[in-house]
Amino acid sequence: MIRVGILFCLGIFILQNGIAAGADSPVSEATTECIDCHASVHPGIVQDWQHSRHAKITLHDALQIDGPARKISSKNVPENLKNFVVGCAECHTANPKTHADTFEHNGYDIHVVVSPIDCSTCHAQETEQYSQNIMAHAYDNLAANPLYQKLERSINGSKKRNKDKIVYEAANAATKAETCYYCHGTKLKVIGSETRDTEAAGELEFPVIEGWPNQGVGRVNLDGSLGSCAACHTRHAFSIEMARKPYTCKECHVGPDVPAFKVYAASKHGNIFSAMHKSWDFSAVPWTIGKDFTAPTCAVCHVSLLVNTDEEVISERSHQMNNRLPWRIFGLVYAHPHPLSPDTTIIRNKNALPLPTTLEGEIAVEYLIDEKESDARRKAMQAACLNCHDTSWVKGHWQRFENTIRETNGNIRLANDIMGDIWRDGFADFKTNPFDEAIEKKWTDTWQFYANTIRFASAMGCGGDYGVYADGRYQLTQALLELNDWLNLRKKLDTSADK
Amino acid sequence: MIRVGILFCLGIFILQNGIAAGADSPVSEATTECIDCHASVHPGIVQDWQHSRHAKITLHDALQIDGPARKISSKNVPENLKNFVVGCAECHTANPKTHADTFEHNGYDIHVVVSPIDCSTCHAQETEQYSQNIMAHAYDNLAANPLYQKLERSINGSKKRNKDKIVYEAANAATKAETCYYCHGTKLKVIGSETRDTEAAGELEFPVIEGWPNQGVGRVNLDGSLGSCAACHTRHAFSIEMARKPYTCKECHVGPDVPAFKVYAASKHGNIFSAMHKSWDFSAVPWTIGKDFTAPTCAVCHVSLLVNTDEEVISERSHQMNNRLPWRIFGLVYAHPHPLSPDTTIIRNKNALPLPTTLEGEIAVEYLIDEKESDARRKAMQAACLNCHDTSWVKGHWQRFENTIRETNGNIRLANDIMGDIWRDGFADFKTNPFDEAIEKKWTDTWQFYANTIRFASAMGCGGDYGVYADGRYQLTQALLELNDWLNLRKKLDTSADK
Amino acid sequence: MIRVGILFCLGIFILQNGIAAGADSPVSEATTECIDCHASVHPGIVQDWQHSRHAKITLHDALQIDGPARKISSKNVPENLKNFVVGCAECHTANPKTHADTFEHNGYDIHVVVSPIDCSTCHAQETEQYSQNIMAHAYDNLAANPLYQKLERSINGSKKRNKDKIVYEAANAATKAETCYYCHGTKLKVIGSETRDTEAAGELEFPVIEGWPNQGVGRVNLDGSLGSCAACHTRHAFSIEMARKPYTCKECHVGPDVPAFKVYAASKHGNIFSAMHKSWDFSAVPWTIGKDFTAPTCAVCHVSLLVNTDEEVISERSHQMNNRLPWRIFGLVYAHPHPLSPDTTIIRNKNALPLPTTLEGEIAVEYLIDEKESDARRKAMQAACLNCHDTSWVKGHWQRFENTIRETNGNIRLANDIMGDIWRDGFADFKTNPFDEAIEKKWTDTWQFYANTIRFASAMGCGGDYGVYADGRYQLTQALLELNDWLNLRKKLDTSADK
Repeated sequence: MIRVGILFCLGIFILQNGIAAGADSPVSEATTECIDCHASVHPGIVQDWQHSRHAKITLHDALQIDGPARKISSKNVPENLKNFVVGCAECHTANPKTHADTFEHNGYDIHVVVSPIDCSTCHAQETEQYSQNIMAHAYDNLAANPLYQKLERSINGSKKRNKDKIVYEAANAATKAETCYYCHGTKLKVIGSETRDTEAAGELEFPVIEGWPNQGVGRVNLDGSLGSCAACHTRHAFSIEMARKPYTCKECHVGPDVPAFKVYAASKHGNIFSAMHKSWDFSAVPWTIGKDFTAPTCAVCHVSLLVNTDEEVISERSHQMNNRLPWRIFGLVYAHPHPLSPDTTIIRNKNALPLPTTLEGEIAVEYLIDEKESDARRKAMQAACLNCHDTSWVKGHWQRFENTIRETNGNIRLANDIMGDIWRDGFADFKTNPFDEAIEKKWTDTWQFYANTIRFASAMGCGGDYGVYADGRYQLTQALLELNDWLNLRKKLDTSADK
Repeated sequence: MIRVGILFCLGIFILQNGIAAGADSPVSEATTECIDCHASVHPGIVQDWQHSRHAKITLHDALQIDGPARKISSKNVPENLKNFVVGCAECHTANPKTHADTFEHNGYDIHVVVSPIDCSTCHAQETEQYSQNIMAHAYDNLAANPLYQKLERSINGSKKRNKDKIVYEAANAATKAETCYYCHGTKLKVIGSETRDTEAAGELEFPVIEGWPNQGVGRVNLDGSLGSCAACHTRHAFSIEMARKPYTCKECHVGPDVPAFKVYAASKHGNIFSAMHKSWDFSAVPWTIGKDFTAPTCAVCHVSLLVNTDEEVISERSHQMNNRLPWRIFGLVYAHPHPLSPDTTIIRNKNALPLPTTLEGEIAVEYLIDEKESDARRKAMQAACLNCHDTSWVKGHWQRFENTIRETNGNIRLANDIMGDIWRDGFADFKTNPFDEAIEKKWTDTWQFYANTIRFASAMGCGGDYGVYADGRYQLTQALLELNDWLNLRKKLDTSADK
Repeated sequence: MIRVGILFCLGIFILQNGIAAGADSPVSEATTECIDCHASVHPGIVQDWQHSRHAKITLHDALQIDGPARKISSKNVPENLKNFVVGCAECHTANPKTHADTFEHNGYDIHVVVSPIDCSTCHAQETEQYSQNIMAHAYDNLAANPLYQKLERSINGSKKRNKDKIVYEAANAATKAETCYYCHGTKLKVIGSETRDTEAAGELEFPVIEGWPNQGVGRVNLDGSLGSCAACHTRHAFSIEMARKPYTCKECHVGPDVPAFKVYAASKHGNIFSAMHKSWDFSAVPWTIGKDFTAPTCAVCHVSLLVNTDEEVISERSHQMNNRLPWRIFGLVYAHPHPLSPDTTIIRNKNALPLPTTLEGEIAVEYLIDEKESDARRKAMQAACLNCHDTSWVKGHWQRFENTIRETNGNIRLANDIMGDIWRDGFADFKTNPFDEAIEKKWTDTWQFYANTIRFASAMGCGGDYGVYADGRYQLTQALLELNDWLNLRKKLDTSADK
């Protein structure tokens, strides 16, 4: 009875995107069994899926679409899946032997955590691109960099007083999971199993997973793969519409270190999006400039397949995401050309520190993209700009942006110079941890908040507020002055103590 | 003539919610008289009301609705109201003898300020629940707590220099009304009357009300009742749609002390709301998970009557609002179990301070809910979570949240420890006012801004930015270090002065 | 062939606003030639225009509209334009001899930068009003005020260390263009020409313009005119809908110095806008209170032509924008009555500084509006308030607002007093630059961020968060205390050094 109800329910959907699904939308037997219970147990999940494209089209029908509108990039989709829509079982029973969390559940081998490899059954190209995305490596890029570990500890670590000092212990796993690794992704691990008394089916056994829940971009999955497609394509609708709106990016890019969303929302592009997007088409594939949307969202510049009204491809779809970006404007501690490898743990600067530049600003050339690659990426980005802006506009914008990279790096050079004196004079200790004292936090503010904000504001043509008074040049200058003021006061105190 | 025009105007509304109203929507004679003038004098008010449910359905028809869809909770609605829609006069002439601002106005006894008791004519249960809401008591909870009064004075008070000190006078009434009491609610008082020369009706007499205007959640009304339903159900549409959207809560919950909206907007739930809510149904009663909405807004977790797609009740409607909350994460100065009574002025800690904990963190157990009540509230909240998340997800989330409460409380213990030394050593004065010196403000930052922000971020599963860099653990650590740095410098100065 | 395609494309538009445009929408020959190439070269621009009112109605038809709905304010529109829609050529070839950037382009004299004078062909009244707007003069008001130039240099200037001091060089042109002058407007200048190899037409010659791109409100154009209509009426849709939504104002009014958008978004008005505006009509001219919208946006209070439901004019359209504002709440360094002339470079205070008040708060009366004008502006603003609020509400609101102006000015008087001591005692140097030292930045925070935020919060009836804890009275008090603490510490150090 319930089964019939569900199918009937699918049948009465009025569908977007012109996909005709009917009462006969072929749901696999396995998925139907999932829904039998979970429609009651987890109605939010089932409803979300029922509104999704996955629930409305069979792989067979999806494979009929050719050219840029095609959404399935895999060459070889298993025959046994083709005649069904993509339901619970299609993903949660895929590749059962490779998932450490596979468990027997009502006669099926289920795994809790669906991985990019599971998604690659249909979306192989996107999975391959994403594996080259620096985000896929976000766990180790933070957890396996000894210097960044010091920074992390100086923020999230438990703190105690030891005489006149604040000392740090390591952060506990729960704190780590909900702070840095909320976005970077946790490392998942099956650490046992437990029995739960379920309402629908009595006592059942489930795996216990350390680091769960998590949907971070660099999650280390239980099949060893990296990343979570659900970070952006929120489960269980996996909607392209949602991923294309800037709110998705905001989940991890809104703080003062990476204020992308705040800056975007105050830019001309963000204004046009906010005021006009109710009439845009966020589901069209490919995405037509001027017709489907009239100003870029994050996805337009960094991810999506764009065509012009003549149906010429302007930007290829890319889940690498930084391949139209010459500069990594997120300072570590300087803005620098993007790393060559998405695995940044291999980078060493001239002084053997795991940083892309020295503290004096010399870049670790062998680990970063060269001029030629920078040029190619700049041109790839500008190809989109030029659909709404003439050459002189685009040129002027980029000249300012690259001037700002030089100028902010110059300011950080000055911050490092003052901080270097503070360390040299023994007013703070570089060696144990360069990030864990009051004055070191003031220094961190300069490059992690203010220089970054200024660069984001410049990149998105929104220097007015975020470039000046909202964590911009005003605050950067203020922090530089306060660093210097602090040093001068300590020097003066030392001199007067010597008298 | 005007009267006919108005009724005709009502008749041509195309109504939402399937309520059929026609040219014969029965408006009472009294309300019709109100509208005769006010449609011209205050067209914004009248238009707003005309779009409201109140203008479209008689009490008689509303009372036909049974079960969870029923919106009228009062058992006994006066007969004389039943055949009319709810218009101006129905509310502004209710209970005339109890309202100190009742005045004669064109033959009617009108009062300006409609109170929850007036609303309870139809909405008795919601009024009763709200009276148990800590918000209803927000005026006295602030104004009658001597310690919080010191905090208020140290922020809003007029300031002067007295030698090398900044001294405070009490804030004036206008400042108080537009700061703390804008949200907490003012205490209204009729202080006289005045004659105004009105365009519509010549000279008329009106009451003069101290503390007006105000729509704060704990407004002390002129009939002695507490609160303003219009705080959330904005006059004169009193829309359930608006109250269910997070922008209403944002009016009072967006600053660094209670950054609920900012955190929500950057969470996965907030992302789904922002991207998808244009297709949700915000007016459905009851509110069906997955069908009417696909991610929670503030109201979903804290207020609304929720059902699943099987029409089973998941959460009862509650205008108490904290009865699904085990923890009060707003630190005073520590996060603590919720107070037993909505009147928090009765609370005394072990040291006789009007605080829910000592400065060392020991909770005032007799005034706060116990483990059993905490468990019941936790389960009531989790009942909603479990519609879209499995048990292990929900469990993992709550383990992290409660770890964060412990960890942030530990950090505040450290802040209090350093601040305690500063007071003990005479570098600041606790007794006069523990909040009114520069270094005391730095201390206040730790518990009022950063620990709070971290907890809100944890509660809503959004630790990425607000848990770390946006008023989170980074800033909390920085403030702790600066407190300690400040103390060390003063000690050093004293030592060198002693030499 | 392409030409036909375009016209056909225009023909199938389903139009908003009831403007009937058909396949025969008469596009001028010149504009048709533009589109022939640019539909491919700049599809985003062409598409945007095609969705605009400009593309859908001929001047002849637009001139048929009489009364408040009329959008063309010019008395004499050139006959040769009347039978066409307003396309590329109509604006980019207007007044060719006055534009320094006019260049020969495929047989036409084109200029890149369209100016308010070009727009005044049809919109003479708006252009005239805007020329009286302080915003039109934003370039010189900043660039030609020697004191503000010191402030600008102390923020955007390149910085170096000179012994124990930070010293400033002038900001470079690119930095200036993307910071202050992004909003204020740049000064444009043709500095040469360049040849580009274009895909569509081979080698072509284009002017090179210094200061380009820019859409700032006070841009100095190549015909000598001031301002850019596209600052708010974003090219190439020039949509009244977009200009009326608050996101447009946010582009320049969101930082802590002018937090108008942030404050609005957290106010009751902002809540109503956010929750309900999807059903408002943002294109109606005139704009009817209660019918087309139910709460003000920025444009409602400051710009738009408003009528009530009886079609009586409540507020005249004004592109002067400050003519309903008695107070300039943006502190320089005090809040003060609005300047008489939009050119503020002429202002001198009693001490000959180019400021509207002395540092002691005495206003430069002869340069500012008097009581009578203040009253007139207050009444003009209140005329809108009174449509949804009764007299006592509006009166109460304004009493609080003007109390807040007095109180915040009092706080700034105190800040100046402490800062005055710091300068007098030689702990900082007023003369060279009163804004360029660490402690001077702390002083700047008081009047540029916190007092401003408090006043914006008061003006928009949203004191709850922005008036207290979000850059409000808490932070203002904290900064005052820290200023004083800093001074006391320096004094103490000097005393102990003297021993």
